[in-house]
Amino acid sequence: MDYQSLLADRTALMKVNAIREILKVVSRPGVVSLAGGIPSPESFPMEIFRELVDRVLTRYDSGAFQYDLTEGFLPLREQVSLLLKSRGITASPEAVHITSGSQGVLDAIAKLLISKGDKIALEAPTYLGALSAFNPYEPTYVRMDMDDEGLVPESLEETLKTHKIKFIYLVPTFQNPTGRTITLERRIRIAGIIQKYNALLVEDDPYSALRYQGEDLPPIKTMADDHVVYVSTLSKIFAPGLRIGFYAAPEFLRKWLVLVKQGIDLHTSTFNQALAAEYLEGPYLAAHLPKITGLYRPKQAAMLSAIREHFPEGFACSPSDGGMFLWVRGPEGFDMIRLYHRAIENGVAFVPGKFFFTDEAEGIETMRLNYTMADEKTIETAIGKLAGTIRAQLNI
Amino acid sequence: MDYQSLLADRTALMKVNAIREILKVVSRPGVVSLAGGIPSPESFPMEIFRELVDRVLTRYDSGAFQYDLTEGFLPLREQVSLLLKSRGITASPEAVHITSGSQGVLDAIAKLLISKGDKIALEAPTYLGALSAFNPYEPTYVRMDMDDEGLVPESLEETLKTHKIKFIYLVPTFQNPTGRTITLERRIRIAGIIQKYNALLVEDDPYSALRYQGEDLPPIKTMADDHVVYVSTLSKIFAPGLRIGFYAAPEFLRKWLVLVKQGIDLHTSTFNQALAAEYLEGPYLAAHLPKITGLYRPKQAAMLSAIREHFPEGFACSPSDGGMFLWVRGPEGFDMIRLYHRAIENGVAFVPGKFFFTDEAEGIETMRLNYTMADEKTIETAIGKLAGTIRAQLNI
Repeated sequence: MDYQSLLADRTALMKVNAIREILKVVSRPGVVSLAGGIPSPESFPMEIFRELVDRVLTRYDSGAFQYDLTEGFLPLREQVSLLLKSRGITASPEAVHITSGSQGVLDAIAKLLISKGDKIALEAPTYLGALSAFNPYEPTYVRMDMDDEGLVPESLEETLKTHKIKFIYLVPTFQNPTGRTITLERRIRIAGIIQKYNALLVEDDPYSALRYQGEDLPPIKTMADDHVVYVSTLSKIFAPGLRIGFYAAPEFLRKWLVLVKQGIDLHTSTFNQALAAEYLEGPYLAAHLPKITGLYRPKQAAMLSAIREHFPEGFACSPSDGGMFLWVRGPEGFDMIRLYHRAIENGVAFVPGKFFFTDEAEGIETMRLNYTMADEKTIETAIGKLAGTIRAQLNI
Repeated sequence: MDYQSLLADRTALMKVNAIREILKVVSRPGVVSLAGGIPSPESFPMEIFRELVDRVLTRYDSGAFQYDLTEGFLPLREQVSLLLKSRGITASPEAVHITSGSQGVLDAIAKLLISKGDKIALEAPTYLGALSAFNPYEPTYVRMDMDDEGLVPESLEETLKTHKIKFIYLVPTFQNPTGRTITLERRIRIAGIIQKYNALLVEDDPYSALRYQGEDLPPIKTMADDHVVYVSTLSKIFAPGLRIGFYAAPEFLRKWLVLVKQGIDLHTSTFNQALAAEYLEGPYLAAHLPKITGLYRPKQAAMLSAIREHFPEGFACSPSDGGMFLWVRGPEGFDMIRLYHRAIENGVAFVPGKFFFTDEAEGIETMRLNYTMADEKTIETAIGKLAGTIRAQLNI
């Protein structure tokens, strides 16, 4: 039968991501991948899972396997409320909702808010998963300037002044893809601007717990509570395969987001939520988090020093105090997609930065490098090879 | 800030379900609820969960907690492929996809196929969860006639002849809310009709494993493979709280549904999929399923005989060989919503059938009774009380 004719109009925006196509060669044998975006399995608290399961079965028995509230499993919401408090965010357990990964929040927000043609304001570059959540609802995007201190507040204000923006989407801390963090001074100004223009901000914060140096910064949510949906996840500090995301939203949006989630998946896995509640209450997280940062800190340092040592002049790496990525910008016009294909031949993969921009014309000379999966020695070697490939492309 | 103005147009159709409002009183102390729609916790294989977890940790270690394919965890897809084979459906592991509950399939199908105003053909009455999945995409509904043998094929043909239908949604076996099953003879005719009119059928089959008497019937998918998306779940035969649904779709739709799911939740819990794979491979299901049917069979029998014994003339119960519900139709115009409020006062809750119809004018004299949660004695007493309330309303 003619299936093509069955597709909804919205599928026009749901093309297979170019990035997935180009990354297909990554898994080729002998290729070291700095292209990934996932945590190291060494970061998972494997030694305590049996204990967590025992605690859950003893405490909740069949209750951990029954249908549960769309809002989320209350014992987990109580623990997340405490976790948010440690990040400076005041949200009662009732005000905290659980979703199937933070992707689940982004999809629900988009479904609730975006009508075809609505404008979403984004950092350039931005997180691709957010675009795949937003695209099916047919928005248009307004790109905002970033530098090494994160989103440029003037660019945000100009955007809100000249466009009717449905919401702003930001990853303020250790952003994917750049690893950049919005400074405290800018967070304060951004909070002021969204209040002044009565705008809604979706603050996506998957990485802030992965800090390798420097001081924690308060989420923008703490400075403009009523204007911010704060979104986070346990994927980077517990286990991504359990698909536990959470959010704290202004009350009006909360009841609507529950209604939306009811239609999407009824609720998130009760068993996994119970495991997460035990993990946070344990307190296993407090004991385990230093192991995760201890695992990644030297990897990041190794990559950073190798870049400084081996990459030619004109290739600058954005400063980053945490997360999973480093961001390199080459001389203007330097073709990182061409470099990608040469690098694969030399056994190293990365992600050309171009794919993280909504504006086709941007980012040809940028690259995203992931350091969570490989060990320090491998990272050094891979960066060395990459540097050689760069020099070859530059004919130096 | 003015949040109302932020809502997408589609939220117009996403009203809080009237059924949820009316059911709020169900949990009042002293009320026996026949209103539920969930499995008994006694049906969960609690005795084997530690063993399943051990098997998963031993076999997959950290692999059970990492990000995984959007299509689903391959070992589970292999097991589901075998499960489908036992139901007469040929689908390779690659052709089987896993979702977050069957709700996750219904949302993805709606997101992929429904443009505003598209027509969906439904049984009258139909499953409410499907409507909450479809509504946000702004379809219109065409209701089709049912009787005790399920969907009336002539009504389907008339619908396809007179309307441009995007897809048909059916629960052919032990339907929620009626407990009815489409006969083999009608399945064959329905398969012929959807092929003749080149239509797409979404065949939702959550209950067919819960058969208490009679012979298994082949899914319509087995008779018109290329025209049917077969949707099922482990919620009724393993544990709903794990949120494991699955589907077998024509190839063209499959790749699109994966793209859609990527934006919704990336993938379904790896750990829960691994537990489900062990449960199916065990083979624990083969050993456990008879316990589930053995638990529900006498409950259904108790309810059925109590209805026959106590309900006055003019109240007929649809025949049902399995599932979780019985459906009673009273004399024309008998107000089951009025009865509901009186019944609550007498300590019994049920769901007025009206809520399961998309046409406001239908179903006032119908009721849905659930028998999975209460024990036989309680069911008999509750049906007795209900009969008394009916007689009072009839003044007999």
